[in-house]
Amino acid sequence: MFTEEDSLYLKKCIELALDSVACGGGPFGAIVVRGKEILSQSANCVTNQNDPTAHAEVQALRSAAAKVGSPHLPDCTLYASCEPCPMCLAAAMWAHIPRIVFTATHEDATNAGFDDTAIALELYGQPNPVNLAPDRLIHLPLSEATKPFNAWLAKTNRKPY
Amino acid sequence: MFTEEDSLYLKKCIELALDSVACGGGPFGAIVVRGKEILSQSANCVTNQNDPTAHAEVQALRSAAAKVGSPHLPDCTLYASCEPCPMCLAAAMWAHIPRIVFTATHEDATNAGFDDTAIALELYGQPNPVNLAPDRLIHLPLSEATKPFNAWLAKTNRKPY
Repeated sequence: MFTEEDSLYLKKCIELALDSVACGGGPFGAIVVRGKEILSQSANCVTNQNDPTAHAEVQALRSAAAKVGSPHLPDCTLYASCEPCPMCLAAAMWAHIPRIVFTATHEDATNAGFDDTAIALELYGQPNPVNLAPDRLIHLPLSEATKPFNAWLAKTNRKPY
Repeated sequence: MFTEEDSLYLKKCIELALDSVACGGGPFGAIVVRGKEILSQSANCVTNQNDPTAHAEVQALRSAAAKVGSPHLPDCTLYASCEPCPMCLAAAMWAHIPRIVFTATHEDATNAGFDDTAIALELYGQPNPVNLAPDRLIHLPLSEATKPFNAWLAKTNRKPY
């Protein structure tokens, strides 16, 4: 189910998230990969850009779609440092992304002060999507998964949202 | 529950959606209103911009947030020509939008060939959000609600997505 490359791309997402925290952004990173090529990568820019939709996954999907010249990315994998929220998950579905791999969980995001689980509960009625194909959204636990959240919580001047 | 202004703003959304179809865009329009001021308005730009996230609501939320200089719009209403899909609904929740008013339904979108209901079923397990406060997402039926979809379906060179 996982490859060595999956771990490497997730570690890259974690690096993006750590860099983002260091630059005043949110503790999330995402990458879109097609074959062996990284089509796009992004961190969370919600507070830096005053854009409520600028989650790392949405940003990466937008960039990848612009790069390939189509709103659809049917041959791509979306990697994310944290479990995608309902907005990002639906965005990936609109983009026809067949495979999403993440490492930190919605519980980790909630512990860091984010509303991911709360929004999921209002929409799904439970923390996780109700009827998603099990191989579409894959959790790959890594020991460094929560490093971006720890860095975020250690900042006294962080901008929560 | 509804005001005359609600109907007027929805009719404006329908006009945006009709104009969008005429220009090769998707049959959706949205407006963000604060008090008596229209902060932003947008049509669906998914195929025109090759951006899977460029639904009318997302575009309008992004523009309104940029205008006010905050990712949060807690004193705004989001009007949409059609029931917001899971991505747009979650985007509005991240933006702290307290009130969303729409006219056409997810069934209308499905009849026009869009995946709104299919994505909702995968995420929610049912066509509608499971635990959303009932006064947050309001359906205001208008006789002209499906005009944009009819215009869309009448186009032979439409770009589905």
